[in-house]
Amino acid sequence: MNADGWGAGFFDGSLAHGVPRRWRSASPLWGDVSFASVAPALHSHCVVAAVRSATVGMPIEPSASAPFCDGTWLLSHNGVVDRAVLPTDARAESVVDSAQLAALIFARGLDALGDTVAGVGAADPKARLNILAANGSRLLAITWGDTLSVLRRDDGVVLASEPYDDHPAWEDVPDRHLVEVAADGVTLTALKGSE
Amino acid sequence: MNADGWGAGFFDGSLAHGVPRRWRSASPLWGDVSFASVAPALHSHCVVAAVRSATVGMPIEPSASAPFCDGTWLLSHNGVVDRAVLPTDARAESVVDSAQLAALIFARGLDALGDTVAGVGAADPKARLNILAANGSRLLAITWGDTLSVLRRDDGVVLASEPYDDHPAWEDVPDRHLVEVAADGVTLTALKGSE
Amino acid sequence: MNADGWGAGFFDGSLAHGVPRRWRSASPLWGDVSFASVAPALHSHCVVAAVRSATVGMPIEPSASAPFCDGTWLLSHNGVVDRAVLPTDARAESVVDSAQLAALIFARGLDALGDTVAGVGAADPKARLNILAANGSRLLAITWGDTLSVLRRDDGVVLASEPYDDHPAWEDVPDRHLVEVAADGVTLTALKGSE
Amino acid sequence: MNADGWGAGFFDGSLAHGVPRRWRSASPLWGDVSFASVAPALHSHCVVAAVRSATVGMPIEPSASAPFCDGTWLLSHNGVVDRAVLPTDARAESVVDSAQLAALIFARGLDALGDTVAGVGAADPKARLNILAANGSRLLAITWGDTLSVLRRDDGVVLASEPYDDHPAWEDVPDRHLVEVAADGVTLTALKGSE
Repeated sequence: MNADGWGAGFFDGSLAHGVPRRWRSASPLWGDVSFASVAPALHSHCVVAAVRSATVGMPIEPSASAPFCDGTWLLSHNGVVDRAVLPTDARAESVVDSAQLAALIFARGLDALGDTVAGVGAADPKARLNILAANGSRLLAITWGDTLSVLRRDDGVVLASEPYDDHPAWEDVPDRHLVEVAADGVTLTALKGSE
Repeated sequence: MNADGWGAGFFDGSLAHGVPRRWRSASPLWGDVSFASVAPALHSHCVVAAVRSATVGMPIEPSASAPFCDGTWLLSHNGVVDRAVLPTDARAESVVDSAQLAALIFARGLDALGDTVAGVGAADPKARLNILAANGSRLLAITWGDTLSVLRRDDGVVLASEPYDDHPAWEDVPDRHLVEVAADGVTLTALKGSE
Repeated sequence: MNADGWGAGFFDGSLAHGVPRRWRSASPLWGDVSFASVAPALHSHCVVAAVRSATVGMPIEPSASAPFCDGTWLLSHNGVVDRAVLPTDARAESVVDSAQLAALIFARGLDALGDTVAGVGAADPKARLNILAANGSRLLAITWGDTLSVLRRDDGVVLASEPYDDHPAWEDVPDRHLVEVAADGVTLTALKGSE
Repeated sequence: MNADGWGAGFFDGSLAHGVPRRWRSASPLWGDVSFASVAPALHSHCVVAAVRSATVGMPIEPSASAPFCDGTWLLSHNGVVDRAVLPTDARAESVVDSAQLAALIFARGLDALGDTVAGVGAADPKARLNILAANGSRLLAITWGDTLSVLRRDDGVVLASEPYDDHPAWEDVPDRHLVEVAADGVTLTALKGSE
């Protein structure tokens, strides 16, 4: 049950690094008749989307729904992390843990994504820290405590928390790995915190 | 899962027929921190409350959430009915089936509640038409296709779709019955459409 | 001040009679960061948009925001009408006067738009009944008690409640007229109720 | 125009330091039929309420609406402050400037309210920093760049941004002052930053 909001971010236009655009809500996705009506008119080569099940006590509002955005990067966190292990950051879009984690990742830079997540994971051993991020030409993901599946199709690559259809090519990504999707293929790298 | 809104109506004040007041929302009840905070400060001897799981295609908005109101009556419908068997009524609060059914019941008067529901049930044999209504001194309910339980406590009577605790005094109300709760007790009457 | 919601409907695709799509909200347009972000990625040759200032007592919710839709037609009402002079219609999207009026216009057909509005105007002399409607290839408007301006540009025609820029070609449409915009130009016709 | 939300916090119960309760929303107050219906059933000896006109770019959502809360204190900020002069605080309820300022005031303690505001005002000379705070037995206010009026009535004291009626006893509070309302009366103290 992910009834506490949703967000869809996407890259628009012909440039590799296009403008990220976002549609976010604090209401259940299934009841959003505007998104159901308008979404088919939107086209993008790169989308980051998420549904939210809020941690108890966290506000339920649009700014708390992924994807978060910094410059050309969109980022979604699937999991939970103790905010006490995260530095506060005035650029965070919301006070919720996922937004604070996103702000930390943005501050350190996406090239340090694996190290940043491994560090947070070391500071909060109970954290689940799956990440999905994209800038229009690169798609990055981290598995850290939650499932992630990858589907290499002829027309692109899909990363999803779980397979959403019966396509035989879905593969599970092992835990504590970095996934990088670029024009030349999909790369998996074990994180430092993994065994 | 009743994530498509909720409503709480109650009677305030010392008069038997007090003023009905309503708090309604189109969002999941569990995420409403205002209601969680303020509700303990509200006191009433008579409450009609409901959570909503919308029929697909019906709007998800506050006016579509029970309880509906007419004069001193609050009314909630648990079920589904084909709007084609209901007359349109300019006084309906919303276009959803439950609001149209409420308008019909209000138009015919609560003394005709059993007959009105039996008539609608005959016109739409697939309808589920459980009703809960109150005016501050009387509490009426109909079972027609859904469950209803009654709890007679020392300090009052509770009607609920299902028991919400382990109290041994919960009793199931048989289908197609009218329940009337008044100062002198609880009366069950079989409806015409029942066997 | 039009703070009680907004809606944008548009026709998508290459067909003259494309699919109407709608994005509607019950919140102020100026605060909708999702619409501000995503709208630039939407493209259409035909748009019907409106902001809403609700009549006191009418519900403030998405289904009450224009444009209303029936088949390939989008329709917005700017004004107010006594619901008592309108027949109730089970196909109305909302109980608000504008939605009931839209349902009546849809039921009679857009070819009868002028007659329908003139009839309603005769039944409720205080009504203001400006209408804007489009199906992707035709754009119709009625002036009945409110202002309307037309702008013929090289790349299309704009109908708006008032000029939104300093373009010298804005022209006021006289009251109680039907405006029809089609591929061959703009036609103004005095309604029967006009002098 | 304060269309970007509202909040009402109040103290309930017979204890001097009762439980603060809050009802907050991101929508215009005038359209909230639930608050209009339920508010007359709420009773309190101490209320902190605010309507919001959001700074451009700030999120419009319930957690960004005053009053903010910490323990037994409710606090509302009327004005604007550059977030860069405020420390980030993980306990802030929202990322908006007012919530960050509230978190700073709560962290320093309400006994330091005047000093805290004067310090922030020195760091951001353009800031407007009017504050209203209450814990059920004490009512504190700061004027710093915006208007504030006080009304001493027989049954209590009202602090408001501006007089809301023609009562002859409304008095303007001079800028850069601390107002304290307690059982023994109203005290005004010039702040250090005032002349």
